[in-house]
Amino acid sequence: MHQQQPIAILDSGVGGLTVAKEVMRQLPREKIVYFGDTARTPYGPRSSEEIIQFTREIVDYLIQFSPKMIVIACNTATAAALGVIRSRVAVPVVGVINPGARAAIGRSTTGCIGVIGTEGTIKSRAYDSALRELSPHVEVISETCPLFVPLVEKGNFRSPETYEAVRKSIGHLRKHPIDCLILGCTHYPFLTDTIAEVMGQNVALINSADETAREVSVILQNKRSLTRRDEIPVHQFFCSGDPILFKSIAQQWLGEQIELTPVIWQVPNIV
Amino acid sequence: MHQQQPIAILDSGVGGLTVAKEVMRQLPREKIVYFGDTARTPYGPRSSEEIIQFTREIVDYLIQFSPKMIVIACNTATAAALGVIRSRVAVPVVGVINPGARAAIGRSTTGCIGVIGTEGTIKSRAYDSALRELSPHVEVISETCPLFVPLVEKGNFRSPETYEAVRKSIGHLRKHPIDCLILGCTHYPFLTDTIAEVMGQNVALINSADETAREVSVILQNKRSLTRRDEIPVHQFFCSGDPILFKSIAQQWLGEQIELTPVIWQVPNIV
Repeated sequence: MHQQQPIAILDSGVGGLTVAKEVMRQLPREKIVYFGDTARTPYGPRSSEEIIQFTREIVDYLIQFSPKMIVIACNTATAAALGVIRSRVAVPVVGVINPGARAAIGRSTTGCIGVIGTEGTIKSRAYDSALRELSPHVEVISETCPLFVPLVEKGNFRSPETYEAVRKSIGHLRKHPIDCLILGCTHYPFLTDTIAEVMGQNVALINSADETAREVSVILQNKRSLTRRDEIPVHQFFCSGDPILFKSIAQQWLGEQIELTPVIWQVPNIV
Repeated sequence: MHQQQPIAILDSGVGGLTVAKEVMRQLPREKIVYFGDTARTPYGPRSSEEIIQFTREIVDYLIQFSPKMIVIACNTATAAALGVIRSRVAVPVVGVINPGARAAIGRSTTGCIGVIGTEGTIKSRAYDSALRELSPHVEVISETCPLFVPLVEKGNFRSPETYEAVRKSIGHLRKHPIDCLILGCTHYPFLTDTIAEVMGQNVALINSADETAREVSVILQNKRSLTRRDEIPVHQFFCSGDPILFKSIAQQWLGEQIELTPVIWQVPNIV
């Protein structure tokens, strides 16, 4: 593994940009190659076979950039495909579920932890397993939120419609004594303000994007694989769907904190 | 590396108990073997040759327990001896400086980060290096606090004397635009309340104990080395100095959150 190689980040769409943004902030020297599968989003309602197939295709595409690490910045794809991808590539593969689980364990004092995610993620019970692998006696309260990803992919982060969707989907979680809520989908940080408003100030929101970026940093540093490069990296973004919408959301999300100089937009040749 | 092997944690004295407590909380299944070199504390004013020698002796002692990981839970020893210890043992060796630096980078928005530590730690400029390895443009403001470790080793966590020592040592740091202060010594979390009172609410205190425990969890989980054991682990504690004082501080610090059942106290045969 060479220090100068990029970090590959993939997602079903724009959600993984929350992870990319945090990696850029926490590791500003590292180059990122990002793929958003916007043509086939959302992954949440798809079968695990289909998700594994899509994730394999994207990883096969990204391998051309010789990444030193692959980040599956999608909870649904992590739940379905992390093991398969790890067995197929020689570089470290990081998902977003273990980092979120670890952060929640670190933060919770009641030991009662909420998780919200797509149908695929929640049905897989991947967060339950990850949380209990670390700490066997935590109580986990889960809820699916199928409305959230389509709202984010449309760029609809704050509106009365969004507030109502969030309130109806997760308002009832306040009946449980949870003190942490894992945003178990990388799209959900786009809705942080609304989710925080609905859940109230006594519930800490665990943003798996922050935690995953931290974990990327831990693993690369412990493998002595951080870049030594001093120049500002030129990141590359790819999406399988509408490039104008993707670019608009990406610039809105990333643009305030970093300069995106020559960004190459390509639609790869996959079905 | 076997999953059932313990995690070895070492410190110049009781400071590393802050790391041990967090490992117990974040990884409650894992067994810990702890060594506090209370006979030779503080390490802060010692030469780096002496600190390397002491750290090697302790690691040689702890190796008898076949640990799956060694945590140098002492900033001074991390700064002086991390590289040497890594080259001597086959298991992962984690220090406390990189985790604290990583957490500060993750938290800071101003990019101006304060670090307090012992003379040995601050003179080594290990935090400057760790912070700039991750993010090259951070500004680092450092201060030595030679009075703090002796106060903690005497169990003097909260008193007018302690408040005065803290105010005189670090009160002037408030002149700088720091938004994070790294507690760059594992003894300092014992003084968290007083340090927070002196620094005010706009400066986040970065507790390297929390962060180091998180990093232990990341590394063990990514190596598939977390224990699968279900029974409550029986931790072992060792110190080179007064066992009554050590036991008193350890029980005060650890006792509220975990049950310490059969704890074995031994003074190892080192000079």
